[in-house]
Amino acid sequence: MTQHQPKAPAKHQKWWGWGPEDGIRYAIEDKPKFPAFAKQVMDLDLSQAQVIPDPSFDDLDVPSSQASDEVLTELRTIVGQGNVITDDELRVVHAFGKGVRDLVRVRRGQLGRVPDVVVYPGSEDEVMAVMAAALRLDAVLIPYGGGSNIVAALEAEPGEQRLVISCDMGRMNKVLEIDEQAQVALIQAGALGPDMEEQLNAKGWTLGHFPDSFVWSTVGGWIATRSSGSQSDKYGDISEVTRGLNMAMPAPEGSDELVQLLQLRPLPSYSSGPNVREMVLGSEGRLGIITQAWMQVHRLAECREIQAYFYPTYDAGLKAAEQIAHADVHPMMLRVSDANETKFSMANGKSTSSKKSHYSNLAVKKLMEAKGWDLDEVCLSFVGFEGTNTHVRYAKSVVNKIVRAHGGLGVGKGPGTLFDQKKYDIPFIRDFLLNIGIPADVSETSTPWSRAKEIHDETVKAAHKAFEETGHKGFIMCHISHSYHSGACQYFTFAIDDASENNMQTYDHVKRAVQQSFMDHGGTVSHHHGVGEEHSPWMEQDISPAGVHIQRKLFAGVDPGKNLNPGKIVHDGKPGVSSNSEDA
Amino acid sequence: MTQHQPKAPAKHQKWWGWGPEDGIRYAIEDKPKFPAFAKQVMDLDLSQAQVIPDPSFDDLDVPSSQASDEVLTELRTIVGQGNVITDDELRVVHAFGKGVRDLVRVRRGQLGRVPDVVVYPGSEDEVMAVMAAALRLDAVLIPYGGGSNIVAALEAEPGEQRLVISCDMGRMNKVLEIDEQAQVALIQAGALGPDMEEQLNAKGWTLGHFPDSFVWSTVGGWIATRSSGSQSDKYGDISEVTRGLNMAMPAPEGSDELVQLLQLRPLPSYSSGPNVREMVLGSEGRLGIITQAWMQVHRLAECREIQAYFYPTYDAGLKAAEQIAHADVHPMMLRVSDANETKFSMANGKSTSSKKSHYSNLAVKKLMEAKGWDLDEVCLSFVGFEGTNTHVRYAKSVVNKIVRAHGGLGVGKGPGTLFDQKKYDIPFIRDFLLNIGIPADVSETSTPWSRAKEIHDETVKAAHKAFEETGHKGFIMCHISHSYHSGACQYFTFAIDDASENNMQTYDHVKRAVQQSFMDHGGTVSHHHGVGEEHSPWMEQDISPAGVHIQRKLFAGVDPGKNLNPGKIVHDGKPGVSSNSEDA
Repeated sequence: MTQHQPKAPAKHQKWWGWGPEDGIRYAIEDKPKFPAFAKQVMDLDLSQAQVIPDPSFDDLDVPSSQASDEVLTELRTIVGQGNVITDDELRVVHAFGKGVRDLVRVRRGQLGRVPDVVVYPGSEDEVMAVMAAALRLDAVLIPYGGGSNIVAALEAEPGEQRLVISCDMGRMNKVLEIDEQAQVALIQAGALGPDMEEQLNAKGWTLGHFPDSFVWSTVGGWIATRSSGSQSDKYGDISEVTRGLNMAMPAPEGSDELVQLLQLRPLPSYSSGPNVREMVLGSEGRLGIITQAWMQVHRLAECREIQAYFYPTYDAGLKAAEQIAHADVHPMMLRVSDANETKFSMANGKSTSSKKSHYSNLAVKKLMEAKGWDLDEVCLSFVGFEGTNTHVRYAKSVVNKIVRAHGGLGVGKGPGTLFDQKKYDIPFIRDFLLNIGIPADVSETSTPWSRAKEIHDETVKAAHKAFEETGHKGFIMCHISHSYHSGACQYFTFAIDDASENNMQTYDHVKRAVQQSFMDHGGTVSHHHGVGEEHSPWMEQDISPAGVHIQRKLFAGVDPGKNLNPGKIVHDGKPGVSSNSEDA
Repeated sequence: MTQHQPKAPAKHQKWWGWGPEDGIRYAIEDKPKFPAFAKQVMDLDLSQAQVIPDPSFDDLDVPSSQASDEVLTELRTIVGQGNVITDDELRVVHAFGKGVRDLVRVRRGQLGRVPDVVVYPGSEDEVMAVMAAALRLDAVLIPYGGGSNIVAALEAEPGEQRLVISCDMGRMNKVLEIDEQAQVALIQAGALGPDMEEQLNAKGWTLGHFPDSFVWSTVGGWIATRSSGSQSDKYGDISEVTRGLNMAMPAPEGSDELVQLLQLRPLPSYSSGPNVREMVLGSEGRLGIITQAWMQVHRLAECREIQAYFYPTYDAGLKAAEQIAHADVHPMMLRVSDANETKFSMANGKSTSSKKSHYSNLAVKKLMEAKGWDLDEVCLSFVGFEGTNTHVRYAKSVVNKIVRAHGGLGVGKGPGTLFDQKKYDIPFIRDFLLNIGIPADVSETSTPWSRAKEIHDETVKAAHKAFEETGHKGFIMCHISHSYHSGACQYFTFAIDDASENNMQTYDHVKRAVQQSFMDHGGTVSHHHGVGEEHSPWMEQDISPAGVHIQRKLFAGVDPGKNLNPGKIVHDGKPGVSSNSEDA
């Protein structure tokens, strides 16, 4: 299964799944409880599962690069010989993100409009020059970070006739400067999560931003998609963490130059007209390429702990979460899994006898039974605390009181410690399931607290109705992932037992039902994954037609030639249409 | 001094100063210490001051309305007979905000382009219809809230040939709905601070937004200018408080309708492309008219107190503030006055013997002397706490520790209670000073903590250099008004002893020096007053030319006819130029 391995100027994932070619995989053999769980929730007999072998790159029919020698020479002059890549495998790596649809398509050789060339700029000036070249050539320019996007924001539109350049930011991965007094750090856009944290940690700092994609996502990618990490309740969404930034973008028509540099200095708050920083946040490459950003950082905390609690029902957990969010204590994490996700978590325990699996041990089970809980409805919650010892002690005492008032049961730090160690491994389960023909995906939404229970229950119902309509078994689970004063994000994961060639139609049917439920019950199209091509069909329902009109005018004004990642977020008359849009 | 008093459909201030015609005034006779202070800092002999009599409306030469009977009939059909006003005095009220330049001009009868008609819509539908009429007539439409703007955002451009309509939102002043679970309230844009709080308080809620302009500013105005209140450290800037909103705006070219309604639902956080809500925030009428908004509200706090502290120097106060901002306790207010403002505050005490004036009492003074403090450098600080008793107790213990570590001295709740009662009276001092020929104004900026001391000292220096250059005595003072993780807002007040006809040139010279110092030392053009015409000359320095380009494209795309408050924030080739722009 070894592939041709091109020498890339920056780290990258394998072309057909999450993580590097030789990286870890989900080890089903270490999960003694998982087969019974799969049997119970999806009637799935894992012992009979047909494991699809890893795909071979040689089976792909990669369209050849349309980049002329002249173009390549020009790009090489800018970024250097070794940083202009037309190698087939690296072009395919850059053709997609890592959404389930991406993986299914790439494994089947449905490659779409593969970029003609991948360039790796090493500096802001080089990004500017690459963009100038792209504009001069009337090429399409798509910024690329860690490649973890799951909303089809990295691919060129199917009918794109122009040259397509993927701009991989991976060489720009340094923490350039830390302002210790203002607690902001200047970080290059291409820094992957772990590389950035390593540089910050070495000096006693952290960004506090830990999305599930952390290992394979970058500072620039987080900004461009309005990311949110698992500790956002304390440290803020990326929109709050980002204090200033630079972005290469087209110059005004009639200028001597083709490109200009947007420079937003690190400022805590300001009243300088419509907030340009907030326009760059979430722009997914449509306004320019973010080169570096001033990000809020924090001293590594004196104390960090994740407490686990059980609730008798999801409703009780939701109500407790709501009260914690209003309690002036700012835990760094406030996660409540619904009953299905709680079962899924337990099924992923290493062993029934492990001392660490406190939350599934017999004593706790007996206690729950004694309390008269329906074990089928039990929900697991993690609350993370970080700060001074005094702060953590205070916050924990407030939280414990609220938990108790909602009938919750504290089970200590063990489960949270385990969760903390394994939190980035979820995509490996997804890849494992895909290997046995089960597409699984995630969709997240935020609502006011007043509609949190409704959107949860109705979305689960809508998914089950959709499963039934497709005639395939499915599973859906959910957790509260981010809390705010006025509401929360709920994060759904669903899987469908359909290994057929048409399983993307099945998937589409379910995905559409989930997204439409979000729209119908007060939710947003996405809380932190972004829009891309995948969610654009719901944008008018999300922010109203007038909101889409405003975004369209913004994009058209800044990028009149539609050279910058066209077609993402809102469609604008270009050839491609969203692959999941029913009305396209 | 009684004027012709037209019957207005909504509350309004007097045409020549702050507050209503029969409202309170600054009572110099109650301030026994103020004359000595004025003598000391500006060599001003108040006993010799010539008090300019209140102006008479009859002395004004008000340009007549250009609104035709046909136009007025059309507008009356929309909003009703009594809600279309062409009365001279009300038109003059709507011609300006309440900046010092505004007051000087209006008192001198320099009226500029007075609006032709003031309309008072009573509903969102009426706002839509008024806007449709304005677009059909190719008129200029300027939204008007409480009239407290100080950056020249309410006036038509001097050379404006088109019909000018001022759209007063004052009839739309209701709290329409409170979602008690999500803690958000739907509030009409025209609600003035006190009217809104009264409605919220009656049900046990508060917005927690208390800008100095509170009495004469509105929800819509706060959003349109990106306002920030004195309790923002806990409750957030208005940009964080605003969760959803509706805005009437032009429809896309080629639509059947002339206008459309932007509808952003109340959502805690989302990743739906560039944030449209953040584009409306700070748009100062250039994108449309905000009709209503979903705002975060909070239960009235169990406990509220404002503690006063003294520091030996401003530097000590700044360092303590920085540490408090990083301490996870979120006081609702964190204010540190510099030495000059501390003296000003003390000089405004009612009496030297009052029991309430703890901070000027002899015991405290002796203690400071015993500590070896230079009394000329002493700085007063207020830290406000709000929440549960437990929270306030905890936060106070953390703050007290930090204050002590920075050599601060706690003097209890007395001064803060007084401050709380008088906090909205500052504009009356400004009007009093203007009555004796002393223009006074405010300018505020935010910087990273690392540049807070620098921008304070350099701005004070720049102002004094400017005073000297004009040959007039001046005074400048400052306080930290808002704190964030990465920095703070500092709020400067300055006054110039120039009663001459040319005093606006003197004022301009100083104002320019202050604003340029902000730009030169890492600050923003404005923290929460907005841009208007007044600050637009510095926008390219603030957010870089590329940032201004983005805003320009946004405005041009949404309002191609330049009908919506043109010329504000960024100039765009219309006749008017900023009255204080040197390069215009």
